[in-house]
Amino acid sequence: MAQHNAFYAQSGGVTAVINASACGVIEACRRHGDRIGKVYAGHNGIIGALTEDLIDVSQESDEAIRALRHTPGGAFGSCRYKLKDIESHRAQYERLIEVFKAHDIRYFFYNGGGDSADTCLKVSQLSEKMGYPLTAIHVPKTVDNDLPITDNSPGFGSVAKYIATSTREAALDIASMCATSTKVFVLEVMGRHAGWIAAAGALAGNGEGEPPHLVIFPEVAFDRGAVMKRVEESVKRYGYCVVVVSEGARYADGTFLADAGNTDAFGHRQLGGVAPTLAGMIKQDLGYKYHWAVADYLQRAARHLASKTDVDQAYAVGREAVELALAGKNAMMPAIKRVSDDPYEWRVEAAPLAEVANKEKFMPRDFIREDGFGITPVCRRYLAPLIQGEDFPPFENGLPMFASLKLAKVERKLPTFEL
Amino acid sequence: MAQHNAFYAQSGGVTAVINASACGVIEACRRHGDRIGKVYAGHNGIIGALTEDLIDVSQESDEAIRALRHTPGGAFGSCRYKLKDIESHRAQYERLIEVFKAHDIRYFFYNGGGDSADTCLKVSQLSEKMGYPLTAIHVPKTVDNDLPITDNSPGFGSVAKYIATSTREAALDIASMCATSTKVFVLEVMGRHAGWIAAAGALAGNGEGEPPHLVIFPEVAFDRGAVMKRVEESVKRYGYCVVVVSEGARYADGTFLADAGNTDAFGHRQLGGVAPTLAGMIKQDLGYKYHWAVADYLQRAARHLASKTDVDQAYAVGREAVELALAGKNAMMPAIKRVSDDPYEWRVEAAPLAEVANKEKFMPRDFIREDGFGITPVCRRYLAPLIQGEDFPPFENGLPMFASLKLAKVERKLPTFEL
Repeated sequence: MAQHNAFYAQSGGVTAVINASACGVIEACRRHGDRIGKVYAGHNGIIGALTEDLIDVSQESDEAIRALRHTPGGAFGSCRYKLKDIESHRAQYERLIEVFKAHDIRYFFYNGGGDSADTCLKVSQLSEKMGYPLTAIHVPKTVDNDLPITDNSPGFGSVAKYIATSTREAALDIASMCATSTKVFVLEVMGRHAGWIAAAGALAGNGEGEPPHLVIFPEVAFDRGAVMKRVEESVKRYGYCVVVVSEGARYADGTFLADAGNTDAFGHRQLGGVAPTLAGMIKQDLGYKYHWAVADYLQRAARHLASKTDVDQAYAVGREAVELALAGKNAMMPAIKRVSDDPYEWRVEAAPLAEVANKEKFMPRDFIREDGFGITPVCRRYLAPLIQGEDFPPFENGLPMFASLKLAKVERKLPTFEL
Repeated sequence: MAQHNAFYAQSGGVTAVINASACGVIEACRRHGDRIGKVYAGHNGIIGALTEDLIDVSQESDEAIRALRHTPGGAFGSCRYKLKDIESHRAQYERLIEVFKAHDIRYFFYNGGGDSADTCLKVSQLSEKMGYPLTAIHVPKTVDNDLPITDNSPGFGSVAKYIATSTREAALDIASMCATSTKVFVLEVMGRHAGWIAAAGALAGNGEGEPPHLVIFPEVAFDRGAVMKRVEESVKRYGYCVVVVSEGARYADGTFLADAGNTDAFGHRQLGGVAPTLAGMIKQDLGYKYHWAVADYLQRAARHLASKTDVDQAYAVGREAVELALAGKNAMMPAIKRVSDDPYEWRVEAAPLAEVANKEKFMPRDFIREDGFGITPVCRRYLAPLIQGEDFPPFENGLPMFASLKLAKVERKLPTFEL
């Protein structure tokens, strides 16, 4: 069979397990050495393809590639760079095809969220129009769990496990301090538009009075009076109150509780500071002493506490992306299909990119409790399997050891290209 | 031999391993059943003794006590309540002796930091004056690592491991994002007066350019210009900058970078919000996009990532406290004595409380790099062994399982006492 090269790139916010997907892609490519020659990774995502800044993955040892499975972050560099619409920025798309052509790249694996699924689809469409035989596969990734079709997004389960564990641990801390000191603990978690990560905090407890006592979702309009009433009730009844709040918490008019005012390259607002804002309100309205934490990058980089289910799935979608490509399935995404809740069973199924791109999956309304401050049993049943299992990285001298790559560059063949 | 009861209480901010010390105390007491009858734990620390609010530990199973070894927080409740000076508040001290007398308590184990060492000493002195035969032992604990005499404080090693690991993980995240997005990541860590925890962040890297690129200590006067220069250099050279900043970071005149304005029961100011303050300065002065995290309780409750060395030492000081008491060593503290750095060896040695109480151990100046932004090799040699080894708790359904105690109360024998 003819042998051609593959391109792999990481896009958007990274996760604790996106490199496990990279590992799945690369190992599968190596197993199919008869059909796939070299894997070229885009340095800093799609920008690497546009600028012909390619990493020759063939120079990495099998051991280094294996270590990607337990390495957080994006080993080849990611980017927040969304290709513009194809009509007005056709040159960018044509450049991609040129670069692929110059390096005999016939397989395009793009590992990211909704925006990159869209890019992947457009690249696929343009290559078809241009008569270049490219198979484009999107490898799903996002801590936000907001990709459609797939039952869950690789990357989410590990954040969920980290947030649930941290909530449970911190709750024991405040429970022991509350008699004479801190009464309220507020943990801010990621999740710009959807409360999936906040919901995972609720897994920390399960039963009357078990923390967290309050989860604040972006899906439920923030009502200061109602929140304060609940905080006060919790402190009076249990002695303390643990609150998990989404960075996307907002008022009924859509205004975010805290808004840093910055905007990223995708046009999304950069949020942060909800926890201190809410803690300040609680102090002001109720006078309680508080502590607050903002997990930020720690939550999505915490490979040391990854969910084994998540690692396995991240690897599997990477591996299956290659199988799909070799089976000639173009413009597809390997998606997680849940077969059963308990015992949890899943498999990977191909989904057409046209159904995935530019769609966000929100929390179903029946996942949020009637009062708006917690999750329902159906939500718990959905979330519980995703945090199952531990997959600790190797430790050396007390610290987790991560992959160390050579990142050797591929020689450029084309003129430079201005972004 | 005559059999008498023991009292155990937890004081001040809790740690990931203070319950390991409780486990050490209780298991040792159980082994010495010929001399020690019941262990009574103070509910919410010393307040439990003052108000005769005692927990009958004899009703807890061996299995539950064993589980304390891997349970964060303070299982019997802690408190921020410092006994006033003995001259003007003699009644409080006499009340303690009364309660001990009423319950035949002859062994007093107080698990805390510098303030509680002081209380322990005073109780010991007063009981002697009053002719009540009490043996008082202080069991060291503090994440701040600021107790004198002992080579390190149980509780610190696990925070150090958590901060070093989190810094390493988050650094991989920002390294992969920095080409097109976030350039600076700021992690705020605990450590009110001493930079021990901030120093531990430096363990994440070791070598030219390895993050963190900047550690900001309370011991070094904050110089905005110098910090900005260093941040800019790091971004220009490595593409990004990781900063670990102590909550105690302050200007030359002693003003904290961020000051929440609250004061706790010990008269210490409650700090927080240095990370967003510093991140804001960086944005203002240099224009870089930033992310920041405040670990707060997460760092000191993170039993899932405890240092095995720390757990072993926390257990050992608890166990040795009982041995000291039974050997008639009054007003002592079991301290960690370092025997060698590499291979790391340590043993427990008794230290007189008079030498421990009310003293804070600061970072030696030669532990901080000449430029003030990092640690020296001698500091690394000191810190490295303290984070060694993993001691993961058992997990069930994807979450760490912690001790669940009955916390049965002891029947009161005395009139109520107003605090």
